[in-house]
Amino acid sequence: MSMTSTNADIVDIARKLIACPSVTPAQGEVFAVLEAMLVPLGFTVDRFLVGEAPDGPVENLLAWRTTGAGPHFAFAGHLDVVPPGEGWASDPFTPELRGDLLYGRGAVDMKGSIAAFVGALGSLSEDLAGTISLIITGDEEGPAVYGTLALMDRMAAHGLRPDLCLVGEPTSSQRLGDVIKIGRRGSVNMWIRVDGTQGHVAYPHLADNPIPPLIRILSAIDAEVLDEGNDWFQPSNIEITDLEVGNPATNVIPAAAKARISIRFNDQHSGAELIERISAIAAVEGGVVTAKISGEPFLTAPGPLSDLVASAIREVTGVEAELSTTGGTSDARFLSRLCPVVEFGLNNATMHKLDEAVAVQDLRALGEIYALIVRRALGGC
Amino acid sequence: MSMTSTNADIVDIARKLIACPSVTPAQGEVFAVLEAMLVPLGFTVDRFLVGEAPDGPVENLLAWRTTGAGPHFAFAGHLDVVPPGEGWASDPFTPELRGDLLYGRGAVDMKGSIAAFVGALGSLSEDLAGTISLIITGDEEGPAVYGTLALMDRMAAHGLRPDLCLVGEPTSSQRLGDVIKIGRRGSVNMWIRVDGTQGHVAYPHLADNPIPPLIRILSAIDAEVLDEGNDWFQPSNIEITDLEVGNPATNVIPAAAKARISIRFNDQHSGAELIERISAIAAVEGGVVTAKISGEPFLTAPGPLSDLVASAIREVTGVEAELSTTGGTSDARFLSRLCPVVEFGLNNATMHKLDEAVAVQDLRALGEIYALIVRRALGGC
Repeated sequence: MSMTSTNADIVDIARKLIACPSVTPAQGEVFAVLEAMLVPLGFTVDRFLVGEAPDGPVENLLAWRTTGAGPHFAFAGHLDVVPPGEGWASDPFTPELRGDLLYGRGAVDMKGSIAAFVGALGSLSEDLAGTISLIITGDEEGPAVYGTLALMDRMAAHGLRPDLCLVGEPTSSQRLGDVIKIGRRGSVNMWIRVDGTQGHVAYPHLADNPIPPLIRILSAIDAEVLDEGNDWFQPSNIEITDLEVGNPATNVIPAAAKARISIRFNDQHSGAELIERISAIAAVEGGVVTAKISGEPFLTAPGPLSDLVASAIREVTGVEAELSTTGGTSDARFLSRLCPVVEFGLNNATMHKLDEAVAVQDLRALGEIYALIVRRALGGC
Repeated sequence: MSMTSTNADIVDIARKLIACPSVTPAQGEVFAVLEAMLVPLGFTVDRFLVGEAPDGPVENLLAWRTTGAGPHFAFAGHLDVVPPGEGWASDPFTPELRGDLLYGRGAVDMKGSIAAFVGALGSLSEDLAGTISLIITGDEEGPAVYGTLALMDRMAAHGLRPDLCLVGEPTSSQRLGDVIKIGRRGSVNMWIRVDGTQGHVAYPHLADNPIPPLIRILSAIDAEVLDEGNDWFQPSNIEITDLEVGNPATNVIPAAAKARISIRFNDQHSGAELIERISAIAAVEGGVVTAKISGEPFLTAPGPLSDLVASAIREVTGVEAELSTTGGTSDARFLSRLCPVVEFGLNNATMHKLDEAVAVQDLRALGEIYALIVRRALGGC
């Protein structure tokens, strides 16, 4: 299978996007460039700013094209990038082709994927029945408070709800197509505080040291086994990430002691259940827990969507994809509330690093894979 | 027994000393005032500055008077005071008599005691055979690096070594004479550090979290029972006084974790033995211990010196003194290397507080008690 006539443009599209500096949160130019490419393809584009400091404002872009009745397939991603850092061989916002690699911040995470979205869409014939949308945020790498969540509100306001969604995060590990993410673990941080009574170490009977009860709480937490993992997830894991008393005086028993834990958990748990469980452990020793759930776990059970993506990968590249749920969280955790979601994109070896680069042949192959996925999702062959 | 003719001056001496602002480290005027009172009494006075920043320079005063062969009795104390703080009813360095109380910073800790030293010495007849000395530092309330220890070096240089020593710290609790300190616990601080390998909480197998081993070390330390106390000391006690990781990132496993402990220990232990003991516990989990011994414990077993002081108290006030080893450390821990040492002085209720004050009748009674102690120590009746 070959679509060189269209896919040749993907590298050029990627260059145009990389050339717009868009360190998170992204606004303005990079969105204008994307909009200018989508409008000629018949897409309705809705760009909007949302939120206030400190987590906003954030620019988002929602684009959609409906051609008759049929399924709604959505591509999702982000145009913001992490800061480039110092020490690049070439300017991070001046895309440069050296050998087979296109260098620039965002080349794989994930302006390259978005270029492949656009290239794929440009290659589709217009007779596919259904809706295609792009859900593109300017804040995935930052707090993500006004990013994909705000886009989901906007979609609801437009009466749009996808049936299938592909997030273009760079999931490939050794070669393009080797990993599809079908889920992610959930993540919750908890802060544990024990209050005591300050006093002088020479007179401990007049004080109440909060550190020993905190130690007992943390010992109990460290002994917890949340689960043994399951078919699609590794075991849930608790890490104690911080201890804080902040007592400069060697002869003073402190008034309070604090610790922080981070739990990455699989679909056998919910954030709320874990907060309740840790709170109960802490309460035995008078500890109080506050918590912030960064994401609930999600799993798109292996089925039609993962089969569709895996077969497209196989046809274009010959690679047999592994279905995985490892790694950190992504915006797929939000989109999974709407419909089945998988994540698939470029090789992540240089993601967030100096001299981030994508192989030109990977960009072109990704465009072919994406095009095949959309065509089949909308009932094409 | 009455010595009103001399002791009437003690209040005036205390006023003169309080009127010299001498927040730790003390220098200059307050020493000049004391020197001017000791020289007419026949004392040789050696004032000297010692040490460099940050713990120096410190002024110290050594005074001695030898009248024939006989025992050497030493008074020890300090002319520096803790900062007065804000909110006094009258100026802290303008001594003010209101009712029966003389107000001013240092009134009880311990310019009042030093006034009683001088008043007592002024009342003594010259036919006592032996040596009387005053070991007075300008840095007891601060780091105490160049204070009493430097005075001990100076004494050695002059060939002076006391046989008995009384430190005039304010030991009385409810009424003058109710407590004599015959010892103090030792004090050691230790810092425990566990190094691990930093990493991302989503990939714990690539990291090595130092917090769980630190928690295990602290659990083991918290379970230690050092002793049950003995006739003269309460049980030794370990307090965990600080925890520190300093990891602001919720998704990062930290590279190192630290804790600090403080041990107040009785004469069944030495600082070195405790450091070895805690180091062995920490080593099991890869923890490394650094330590600083603030003072070894000392005990002047009940005997001639405590009997002498207790009987003088009884004769002047009718109070039966309790022999105690409670409380923090004092310079007596250094002087105990030379000879038997006890601590006895004014009521400590207002020590280090706003509106520090001494009862005029206590000042006069203390002068009588000190005079009686010196006279009997030097073989008088």
